[in-house]
Amino acid sequence: MQCPELRELREEIPQRIKRFRALMVAEGIEVALVLQKVDLFYLSGTAQDGILQVDHEGERLFVKRYPQRAAEESPLRVVPISSLKDLRKFLGPFEGTIGLELDVLPVRLFEQLKEIFPKAEFKDVSPLILRLRSSKSPWELSMIKKASEIYGMVLKRALEILRPGISELELSGELIKTAMSHGHQEYLRMRGFNQEAHSWHVLSGQSASILSSLEAPLGGWGPSPAYPMGAGKKRVKPGEVVLLDFGTCYFGYHSDHTRCLCLGRPPDPLKKAHEVCIEVVRTLEQRAIPGVLCSELYEAAIKVVENRGFGKNFMGLYPFQARFVGHGIGLEISEPPFLAQGHDYPLEEGEVIALEPKMVFEGLGAVGLETTYLVTKEGLKPLVELPEEILEL
Amino acid sequence: MQCPELRELREEIPQRIKRFRALMVAEGIEVALVLQKVDLFYLSGTAQDGILQVDHEGERLFVKRYPQRAAEESPLRVVPISSLKDLRKFLGPFEGTIGLELDVLPVRLFEQLKEIFPKAEFKDVSPLILRLRSSKSPWELSMIKKASEIYGMVLKRALEILRPGISELELSGELIKTAMSHGHQEYLRMRGFNQEAHSWHVLSGQSASILSSLEAPLGGWGPSPAYPMGAGKKRVKPGEVVLLDFGTCYFGYHSDHTRCLCLGRPPDPLKKAHEVCIEVVRTLEQRAIPGVLCSELYEAAIKVVENRGFGKNFMGLYPFQARFVGHGIGLEISEPPFLAQGHDYPLEEGEVIALEPKMVFEGLGAVGLETTYLVTKEGLKPLVELPEEILEL
Repeated sequence: MQCPELRELREEIPQRIKRFRALMVAEGIEVALVLQKVDLFYLSGTAQDGILQVDHEGERLFVKRYPQRAAEESPLRVVPISSLKDLRKFLGPFEGTIGLELDVLPVRLFEQLKEIFPKAEFKDVSPLILRLRSSKSPWELSMIKKASEIYGMVLKRALEILRPGISELELSGELIKTAMSHGHQEYLRMRGFNQEAHSWHVLSGQSASILSSLEAPLGGWGPSPAYPMGAGKKRVKPGEVVLLDFGTCYFGYHSDHTRCLCLGRPPDPLKKAHEVCIEVVRTLEQRAIPGVLCSELYEAAIKVVENRGFGKNFMGLYPFQARFVGHGIGLEISEPPFLAQGHDYPLEEGEVIALEPKMVFEGLGAVGLETTYLVTKEGLKPLVELPEEILEL
Repeated sequence: MQCPELRELREEIPQRIKRFRALMVAEGIEVALVLQKVDLFYLSGTAQDGILQVDHEGERLFVKRYPQRAAEESPLRVVPISSLKDLRKFLGPFEGTIGLELDVLPVRLFEQLKEIFPKAEFKDVSPLILRLRSSKSPWELSMIKKASEIYGMVLKRALEILRPGISELELSGELIKTAMSHGHQEYLRMRGFNQEAHSWHVLSGQSASILSSLEAPLGGWGPSPAYPMGAGKKRVKPGEVVLLDFGTCYFGYHSDHTRCLCLGRPPDPLKKAHEVCIEVVRTLEQRAIPGVLCSELYEAAIKVVENRGFGKNFMGLYPFQARFVGHGIGLEISEPPFLAQGHDYPLEEGEVIALEPKMVFEGLGAVGLETTYLVTKEGLKPLVELPEEILEL
């Protein structure tokens, strides 16, 4: 393998499994079968086609394609299988509670598992895995930091090449090229049915105020109605704010950043709104310490923007506003914790979050910023230093 | 909307629904609820967050985010909803058979639907939709043709920039940039749990013989073990075969092509194997006429390669070979029909397939080609003219 990072990852796996097992015991899950590729990679160190079995005594990794590669990547014991049915041979006619990722597992696959284990009870194990994943190790943090630094290079490149008449798709292509030359994984992962993520959420002027199906403040035309979000064929004009909402990914770990550029001077209301977004950032950087409720942070953001008279522009076009101001990030672009309405659980030290106050104006476009932070005892610490103001060219 | 193509798409929708309804009646499905984004786009013309209800009398499109945009894109009647539960209000306590996409619908979402319709029976409707989708209209064909032409530009660009020392990821970034500047949708769609598709399957020398979890002849290191397939950090060396297996996508429609490049002269066994791949193509182009069984085409390919002594190199490293030689393509990168072992159904006129005979050599790499074709009465017709030999630079 060509990856120096792999050794450190392998060393972390036993600890991750141990923490997972403790949660399983607490929740009364006797066996977990982990199938989703991202969870599998988190708990085993490999993303080959396999199933991780964890019970209260031990664990093994069943692999279909390819056992040999999985064994090179993962420190766990690899057992080759040729089909799902082989599980029956290894686990026997299991009668207890099996944990499965029921939020993502398709019905047809679930039916097969029920046939293999007709006497088992099934329980959703995804909340446990997501809870585990939300707190990042120093090694994981270093991967997200690398991804964040790639965004820094993307922004630098955008400042070099932005010109009137360049299309959003062309600009995105240039930025993807820059990111990939630094090791960026141009496939972002987003959990859940129908969820599709892309790096190239690069929107100019009015595009940023186009509503999309994505539960996010900014939509965009996208390349076509078949993929109706993100960069489209629209060309950049002077005086328009261009939002580089560009997710980057290194060794499977994402970072999420947005900065604004403008050829010339942006319209006054947008400039003012951007300053309020920075005010939201300053407020939350201080308040976001371990123990504070995630929902309180969202409410604090709302208070700032309403005080400044931008309540109807915050996080989307009124009344279709997204009800969050930030989200956890790691092996998926959006994961717990969510700084959102109703999310009344505490923020914890070691979590990594993307904070993204944004304002949208019908027909005019959007402004705002997004930064990936580590949660520390002293508040939020950005993983890369970037200018915050609208960058006028 | 900025899309001239939208008008023609809208005109096709009523016909697609009509054909779908006929299949539903034949299969005894009284109501279909279509949720998956790609199927929804196919049947409604919009990929907004919605649910298409089709029954024997009519159809309506329930949309959560955003009804207004969905109504601009789709010719169907749009009914705004705020949550899944609203379906109960509109459909009542339905007691018949509901068709759902059970191959992709997650268990948790299915449980919600069962709670909403406790007396209904559920049946998998995906096979019907995939059958419908396999035959392409002239308009759909024109979209796949545009995607194919984008590959032509990608190949041209690769010939300009390939140089010793460029990494697979750098080369991929350059090609994505070229493709996006022509309207390419840099998010390829692949149906099914854990299925991830990327355009940048750009592999050099030994990389092409690295096994991956993907059910495909070529693997690749990928950027890291977190995403262990496709282009990686490896740098191109003279004498290595570089495979540009690069999927392109226009207006949601994919094309899939592979061509080989080499800085200098490729090793003799690879050169010979590539000629055999071209022989497979010539054989299948003639034999692939409407009515022939898809499995027969796979067997015909096997016969050619075994006659030439390359049976153990065909479609992957022995014994981990993929058991197909081609696949349908359209709104997803891989869809029925499959030119594969055991697929004993006839090829039909109007289907579009990607034919991809490839040969893999341990440690040396791979060769072969892939072309997207229309199935016509006279055999296969390529959607773009491309050179077939290994392009030596």
